[in-house]
Parts: sequence; C-alpha cells; structure tokens
Amino acid sequence: MKQKQRVSWIQTIVVVVAKENTGLMMDIIQRFQHKKVLVVPGGSTRHRSICNGVAALGEQRRPAAHKPKVVIIHDAVRPFVDEDFLHKIATAAKEQGAAGAIRPLVSTVIATTSEGYLDHSLERAKYRASEMPQGFTYDVICEAYQKCTESDFEFGTECLHLALQYCGTNAKLIDGPPTLWKVTYKRDLAAAESIIKETLSQSACLITGGLEAAVALANVLQKAFGALDMELNVTPDLMGDNGRYLLEDWNFIKVSVDPFCPSEVEALIVALEAENRALLNPAVIIWVS
Amino acid sequence: MKQKQRVSWIQTIVVVVAKENTGLMMDIIQRFQHKKVLVVPGGSTRHRSICNGVAALGEQRRPAAHKPKVVIIHDAVRPFVDEDFLHKIATAAKEQGAAGAIRPLVSTVIATTSEGYLDHSLERAKYRASEMPQGFTYDVICEAYQKCTESDFEFGTECLHLALQYCGTNAKLIDGPPTLWKVTYKRDLAAAESIIKETLSQSACLITGGLEAAVALANVLQKAFGALDMELNVTPDLMGDNGRYLLEDWNFIKVSVDPFCPSEVEALIVALEAENRALLNPAVIIWVS
Repeated sequence: MKQKQRVSWIQTIVVVVAKENTGLMMDIIQRFQHKKVLVVPGGSTRHRSICNGVAALGEQRRPAAHKPKVVIIHDAVRPFVDEDFLHKIATAAKEQGAAGAIRPLVSTVIATTSEGYLDHSLERAKYRASEMPQGFTYDVICEAYQKCTESDFEFGTECLHLALQYCGTNAKLIDGPPTLWKVTYKRDLAAAESIIKETLSQSACLITGGLEAAVALANVLQKAFGALDMELNVTPDLMGDNGRYLLEDWNFIKVSVDPFCPSEVEALIVALEAENRALLNPAVIIWVS
Repeated sequence: MKQKQRVSWIQTIVVVVAKENTGLMMDIIQRFQHKKVLVVPGGSTRHRSICNGVAALGEQRRPAAHKPKVVIIHDAVRPFVDEDFLHKIATAAKEQGAAGAIRPLVSTVIATTSEGYLDHSLERAKYRASEMPQGFTYDVICEAYQKCTESDFEFGTECLHLALQYCGTNAKLIDGPPTLWKVTYKRDLAAAESIIKETLSQSACLITGGLEAAVALANVLQKAFGALDMELNVTPDLMGDNGRYLLEDWNFIKVSVDPFCPSEVEALIVALEAENRALLNPAVIIWVS
C-alpha cells in the first residue's frame, strides 16, 4: 500500500537516536514504511547530537539528495507541531538565516545567588521562552557548529545562540501555539492523550458497505456531523481509494444492514490490525434493521 | 460530622475571588464546612488581589484571630502543593523574612528586540523559574504593599521582587516538586486528573460489615496491598470512627458475604453521596459466597 506523503516539501528527516535504541527506531521506520528517514547516533550532549544530525545531511549518498537549503531542528518530545508552523519556521529561516518558536513565559524568571537567595527577578514582558522547532539555512547551522567551542558543545543548549554568536545571525522569533510544550513528566502523557483524543473525536470514517439503507443513514449522519463542525467521511469500503481511510487517525463507524453479522465486524478489525493502527477510540458498529 | 482538620498549623485561609464568583465560593465553603476560610474580593491585577487578601488578615474581628506571623501566598491553579512543602516555605519565611518555590527552567529564556528578533539568550543554569507558594513574615509583606508604587500594582507580578525592593529582603529560594506546575491549558486538566487518579489508586478503604469471612478476606488483602506498597484501610462500618473514612479520597471496597444484597450497595452509595464525594474511581463490591 502506498504510504501517504506527509509534509511533502521536507526532503529528508534525520532522527538522532541513542545507540542502544537504534534497533527499536529501525523497526518503527520499517513498520510504518517511512521512506525519507535517516537514523543517526546521538552524542553525549544536546549540541553534539544535533551536530551529528546536521552532518548526516551533508553526507547523503543518494543521487536525489542534494544539499538542503533549510534545516529544521525539532524535539521528539513536542509531538504536536503542525505543518503550517513548520512552514512558517522554514520560510523565516530561509529569509533571515535563522528562526525559532517562542512562547510567553509562564513564570517569572529569577537570578539566584550562589547561596540560594533571590538576586533579582527579570521583567517578564521583556523575555520569552525559546521553544522548538527552530530553522536555519544549511550554511548558517554548519558554520555555527564548525566555529563553536568545546564548552558550547558541553554546556550549551540553544542553537539560536550559536547562530548569533558565530554567524552574526539574529534569528526571527515566531509565536508558537501552546501545543509545542515538552512532554516531560508522567502527567504530560495524560495531557498528550487528551489532545489526541480530542482531535480524534472531531472526525469519523463511516463504512457503508455500499448498501442503500446504510448510505441513506450516512447522508443523515453527515449533515448532523457538519452541524457540529465535525468531519464525517463516508466510504463504501475501508480498503477502497487505495486504503486512504486507513492511513488517518479517526473513529471508524461501520453501518451494517444485515442482521447480526460477526464476519463484517471481524473483517473491519482484521483490516485495522493489519495496518498496525493503535486505536485510541473504539470502532463503532451500527446495525440498521 | 466533625471536619478533619487539615494543615492544623494554618490559622486562617483567605480566598481571593472575583466578585461575580463570591456566591459560588461561599456555597463550596458551606458545603464542605470549612471553618477557617475568609472570602475577599479580588482586584484588577495580581498584586491588587494579593494585597486585598493580606489586608483582610489584619482586619479580622474574631477574638481568637491574632496578627499572623507568616503569610503564605499560593495560586489556586497549583492544587497539588503538599503540607510538607508549605511547612518548608513557612519556616524559611519566618527565618529570612521571605521564601519562595523555584523550579529549573524547562526552556531557554531569550530577550527579544522590539522587531521580533533574538537579542540575546540567558545562560539557563544561572536562572530559575519562580513558582508558588511563597511565604513572607506578615510585617515584610505588609510593608512591601504599603511602599510599592501604582506601577508595581498595575504591571508587576512577583511578590519576592517587592520584598527585595521595598524591604531589602532577599528571599530564600527552595526547590519545589514538579507537581507545583500551573494548571493552565485544557490539557492540564487531563494531567491533573491523572495525578489524582494515581494517588487514589495507591489506597483503598475496605468495608467488611464486621462479618468473619469478610474480615478474613480483608486480612489477606491487606497483606497483598502492603506487599505492593499500597495502603488498605479496613473498617467494619463506613460511618464508624466518626465517619473518618468518608473524609479521605480513596477507593471504596465493600465486601459482602450475603448472597446478592442490593440494599448494602445502596446504603454505601447513599453514604458516599451524602458526603458529596466526587468519586473519581468506582466503588468496588466483592461478594464472597
């Protein structure tokens, strides 16, 4: 089955992974048939890992792979970045040399004395939290990592800082959505699940089997969904249209007009399982009698 | 029923509420029979609201209420603060005049130019996020609000800053737990629920009805719970011991040795409902036959 092309304007995705997790990552890439992913071993610090990833882009042997214009750097722990925002960062990076996502500060930032007392507090309105993704022209990020010091590699964390210090590039800062937050604590997993479920609950794929009564019901449901600003896709057959309905995350509703027919349910479940779909919402079966 | 005294060393709790929510807050206080809560109208900014709350502590007419030694300021959107941490803050405030919770910065903090470009980034290791709770001696916080300017009231957000600027008090900073985060976004409600559920899943209250077979089962279960580092409280009667088992949050397990006996289940549910317990986990009924 042809994998749907996500974010088609991205040429190569480099995933930097700790050596001990390379096998696991390779399995995931194979299972989901990702075609443009390179896996690169991580380093001992954030900057060493990113530098490995950038270097890998320059060493590609594939004939179709030419030197990239823009490199976007992102954290896997911010899984909800959307294509529009990636595009904004890439465009600004191409124009300015560097660009990064920012968010308002949630807390006041304070400087501490070495003894653990308040030294001074920063005026919150003048500062922002620097988030990911960040974008750079390939030349800027390469130059930054070529010129930076061992101390930067060891203790630094901020790529925008390297671009400023070593290339004189003042990054363009772009307000990011709250969904860019880092999934850090155990509680963030519950928060992430709630976001996925909320998105899921906005759309459904209804499978009619092509039968008249089911199609009639589907039409009525589609109007009702529309009135609620929800998306209802209708297909006679889950495998139809190159199986595209199987490649997106939504609720599956199967309408059956036969009397109780376990084989149809079974076929649906087999099809979903064959695609390795981790279903967060149950598939719903409606019997019309 | 006598309300269990939580955090007994706190004399008065001032809740600062927007005027339109005063009725709602009064209802909650009455419903849960809170005895030491004062409700005070909020102001148009954070500092004006806190200042109203501090002023209310000095205006108490109750004979038992004397001028407080230490005032702890907290945000309602950080509901998971525990008594130990409050005590640390109060103790440090008493010694130093002011104390506040800090957390490591999750993101790099950057200064922006007025045109939206990176000006410079801060070295993350030298700064901390200032969180709540914060504590002050009553004299320090009163003096700070007496001396501070209209501009502080209008644009400021940081009480520790006022204590430093107007009283010369460098607050003691204390590392707080990650559970002090602000419940800010919709996703944080899911995260908060997951924390409550996790705490709940660590303890249960088992109601035996005093019957021999149920007590024997309870003893076995108690050993099994202990081996899992979980707490199992056993009581013959939910209403016994002044109903103290009804006043804490845990799972309720009712063991019944009679054949199906809906009246026992009904009695349990009526007792839970009478206490206005918002049950996050279901009550479990075990029948032993």
